Amino acid sequence: MGSFPNSVQRLIDRFARFPGIGKKTAQRMAFQVLKSDETQAVELAESIMQVKTKIKYCTICGGITEDDPCNICTDPKRNQDMICIVEDPQDIFIFERASTYRGVFHVLGGILSPLDGIGPDDLNLNKLIDRVKDNTEIILATNPSVEGDTTALYINKLFSERNVKITRLATGMPIGSAIEYTDEATLTRALEGRTTF
Amino acid sequence: MGSFPNSVQRLIDRFARFPGIGKKTAQRMAFQVLKSDETQAVELAESIMQVKTKIKYCTICGGITEDDPCNICTDPKRNQDMICIVEDPQDIFIFERASTYRGVFHVLGGILSPLDGIGPDDLNLNKLIDRVKDNTEIILATNPSVEGDTTALYINKLFSERNVKITRLATGMPIGSAIEYTDEATLTRALEGRTTF
Repeated sequence: MGSFPNSVQRLIDRFARFPGIGKKTAQRMAFQVLKSDETQAVELAESIMQVKTKIKYCTICGGITEDDPCNICTDPKRNQDMICIVEDPQDIFIFERASTYRGVFHVLGGILSPLDGIGPDDLNLNKLIDRVKDNTEIILATNPSVEGDTTALYINKLFSERNVKITRLATGMPIGSAIEYTDEATLTRALEGRTTF
Repeated sequence: MGSFPNSVQRLIDRFARFPGIGKKTAQRMAFQVLKSDETQAVELAESIMQVKTKIKYCTICGGITEDDPCNICTDPKRNQDMICIVEDPQDIFIFERASTYRGVFHVLGGILSPLDGIGPDDLNLNKLIDRVKDNTEIILATNPSVEGDTTALYINKLFSERNVKITRLATGMPIGSAIEYTDEATLTRALEGRTTF
């Protein structure tokens, strides 16, 4: 013996496929399923299936939603002429939690990464071109990484001959941080982007 | 808005119930389910249900198994007169992985903890009393913690008037560790339990 019963091992393997879940955590999770009562396991299994059946991608912005189009795209109080471009659907919820942005979103569904074989055709760009009208403001909210910057540059070029305002999220020191712990790249950007006091 | 769609939030909540899974990890897991294709989600949901339907507790040792009694209890090559007492079913697999122990196991299904209201009646002790014969060796393998030590003491007392050999796992410095990083309690135990060189 020495190994777990088949069904337990299979569940451990499935849990360990999740990003950030190691072998040990996956084991603890599988044993938690074993210990919990039947209804809890049924609820978990059903929740997994419901997410797959109920959630659609919004045909306008590409965000996740139970009703298509999503409540952000159909909200008359939001500025439809301000489009914030994000990499993944979950990024939308980070903005929504800050609840200061009143425009709409557009999900790329990825980021330019030649090393991973991801080119412009793999991103949700055609719909973006259709959505952008004259006087639209595009806010580039891809991550401040090499791939995020490359993608932002690409989209900027895509609309360079159109009458649209294109902005990029500010980079600099995060609120609550300390200079002591700030890395060189961030500090350089914060210096470059310094504002009049 | 500002919050996740209902079905996504429900799945996040369920994942966050697992020990060691925080809110952020639960979110990442839920979005992974969303991204993965349908079959993977079905497989995960089925694995969860299979663990609940296929796994039983061995009527002899209390370990988890798909066949009752388990392959350890029915293995003729194992010493049935040496019973290693562990707290949880998963502890058995740690011993099995070391593959040096050739006796059998007995799962208590908990540990004495008056603060949590767990007394002797809540542990799988009656079956243990039935299993122990004259000349059986009992190895107390509860954790080297206050509760583990208390439980070991209790079981020791339970069999004090019977002709059984009772041993406790050695405590001391773990292999590969360094004195520099060893806590006081462990070092004290290692000193007390020092062996002739």
